[in-house]
Amino acid sequence: MTREGSLAPGGPPVYAVILAGGSGTRFWPASRRLSPKQLLPIGPAAPQSLLRRTAERLWRMVEPSHTLVLTGRHLLPQSQAELPELAESAFLAEPLAKNTAPCIAWASALVAARDANAVLIVVPSDQHAENEDAFLAVLDVAIAEANQGKIAIVGIVPTRPETGYGYIELGRRGDGPVAEVRRFVEKPNWDTAESYVRSGNFLWNAGMFVFQARTMVEAFRRHAPELARAAEELAQLDSSSGLTEERILTFFEQAPSISIDYAVMEKENALSVVAGDFGWSDLGSWESAWELGAKDSAENCGRPEDIFVDSKRNLIYAAPGEGGHKTIALVGVEDLCVIDTGDALLVVRREQSQDVRFVVEELKRRGELSKL
Amino acid sequence: MTREGSLAPGGPPVYAVILAGGSGTRFWPASRRLSPKQLLPIGPAAPQSLLRRTAERLWRMVEPSHTLVLTGRHLLPQSQAELPELAESAFLAEPLAKNTAPCIAWASALVAARDANAVLIVVPSDQHAENEDAFLAVLDVAIAEANQGKIAIVGIVPTRPETGYGYIELGRRGDGPVAEVRRFVEKPNWDTAESYVRSGNFLWNAGMFVFQARTMVEAFRRHAPELARAAEELAQLDSSSGLTEERILTFFEQAPSISIDYAVMEKENALSVVAGDFGWSDLGSWESAWELGAKDSAENCGRPEDIFVDSKRNLIYAAPGEGGHKTIALVGVEDLCVIDTGDALLVVRREQSQDVRFVVEELKRRGELSKL
Repeated sequence: MTREGSLAPGGPPVYAVILAGGSGTRFWPASRRLSPKQLLPIGPAAPQSLLRRTAERLWRMVEPSHTLVLTGRHLLPQSQAELPELAESAFLAEPLAKNTAPCIAWASALVAARDANAVLIVVPSDQHAENEDAFLAVLDVAIAEANQGKIAIVGIVPTRPETGYGYIELGRRGDGPVAEVRRFVEKPNWDTAESYVRSGNFLWNAGMFVFQARTMVEAFRRHAPELARAAEELAQLDSSSGLTEERILTFFEQAPSISIDYAVMEKENALSVVAGDFGWSDLGSWESAWELGAKDSAENCGRPEDIFVDSKRNLIYAAPGEGGHKTIALVGVEDLCVIDTGDALLVVRREQSQDVRFVVEELKRRGELSKL
Repeated sequence: MTREGSLAPGGPPVYAVILAGGSGTRFWPASRRLSPKQLLPIGPAAPQSLLRRTAERLWRMVEPSHTLVLTGRHLLPQSQAELPELAESAFLAEPLAKNTAPCIAWASALVAARDANAVLIVVPSDQHAENEDAFLAVLDVAIAEANQGKIAIVGIVPTRPETGYGYIELGRRGDGPVAEVRRFVEKPNWDTAESYVRSGNFLWNAGMFVFQARTMVEAFRRHAPELARAAEELAQLDSSSGLTEERILTFFEQAPSISIDYAVMEKENALSVVAGDFGWSDLGSWESAWELGAKDSAENCGRPEDIFVDSKRNLIYAAPGEGGHKTIALVGVEDLCVIDTGDALLVVRREQSQDVRFVVEELKRRGELSKL
């Protein structure tokens, strides 16, 4: 299913670049080193993984053959299994995690070597967009900005004084949802966040960027010249089929571990921000999986076979087991997340689901690597 | 480990008769048709089963070779496995559940055929006695009563206005903890139960009886003559080794399904009651398993490997799994029972643990027999 807009004939080709190398502990015990959040069917993505859902969302606008997936080498088979329609060459596997700048530099140089005017839409693989049409409309605007030489950042209209995100302060307003970027702000305290939301002058930075390949390549040359040179060398090898695992490893070994925000965005002038309000969520915890999931009349979110007796506002998440489904029953409980993966079970008060990290820390302390 | 008292030379032999045929749903999902409560290591019995714990408690007073275990035929292998020191002939297996009267009639006739003066201590297999010395001291008194021709009922000094038990109203007091029985009372309502406890004139009927074999055989002859005759025939066959499965089946098919209380106790005059105060519990729900279990400083009751983060007064019960232990973590929760058996998981508010029956009803409705 494609859609008018950026696929209209005549414009430069548009690539989707999906950042799928993330790891994390906030969805333990479902998320593990080898099955991080983006590979899980959490929230409204079920039964699809978030990665799959992200790709399908973008494929309404981008040809699947114009998709790149940046992932960790240890996640490559699982990522390929989620997106079987993609060629092997669509997956850029990082042998080492070096944050977002090195892999975006690589992808940008790679696409630039094919068509310097091509537009890249860089998106995380583990987010949710409730209103997909609105999401794609925002991307259309961002693509238009990109085609004017800007790095367009999709900024999310904040819905609460969130202290866990970075904010973008808006500068001069342009047409519609477009504005200049005045500055980036690190995670604020609650009072500051509250004033940001009230002012209407701040957006959340959700890590979504749209730009022409040449624009990003030149930005890297300006702000991170060594990384730019190495990335362009790598891309050059790729187009001449001389790329080896060894060369990729060397690139990542020598690359600094740095985010695209620090490496480029905070130093770059040719930025715009496009405000988006499309029911975005970063699915930051089991709490948000419950918030976004389908619920029954008692606001329980589970599988059809789960049994709820006098229980309200709970989430059940169970990995499919061997030998038939597991019966899970809740009796007289409220506001819990119950996560069963066969080898581990978590019961957490919904509002405290960010504290799952303490369990992960305890498992590390115990050396229980198989559970991490 | 034996103990003075009823093992003193000269007295008639004493038999322990353990009622281990019970089934129930209050410990679902741990308790199932083939692993009822008495076979589980719940409460302070862990890691022993309640059946094993009951036998060991009695073996401080009774020779193991003088033990009879009355159980269901479908529970025979599991029951034998719990008590491997007992001969095969120690187990009387009921092919049909017919409540307590038929199997006690059988056991009484069986022992009477060996020694009519022998004393039988009949106890359920799924109860807890916190103070075992006090428990055995009560049995000593009951044995003395039995040797005077009485059926001595161990009555529990009530600690709360419990509406789930039957009560025994005391008649004329004898020496020490002994009294006559004025009447049996069915489960009372709360106000009545409260007045009973306040009066000091009522004890809980816990289903523990002590009597000489001849006394019970004669009582059955008076109050249930057909059952008495059939039981004595069965016992006679047993002593001549002519007992077949077929004969046992016929006995139970023809026996009425009736409790020892209805069949004998409520009609019998030669009763005494011996008051016991030894930390008795019938372990009626997961709540009581938590109450009696060993707890950490936050009053959590679990396995050493369980992880509790900011959680209080919870019970974790997990069946040992294949391939290593399951990691169970609770975060920010209070007053829950979390029961994991591999194929089923229950999370229940502790105080509502009697409502587990609704889950069992739902599983029956669905026809999920493998989970029952």
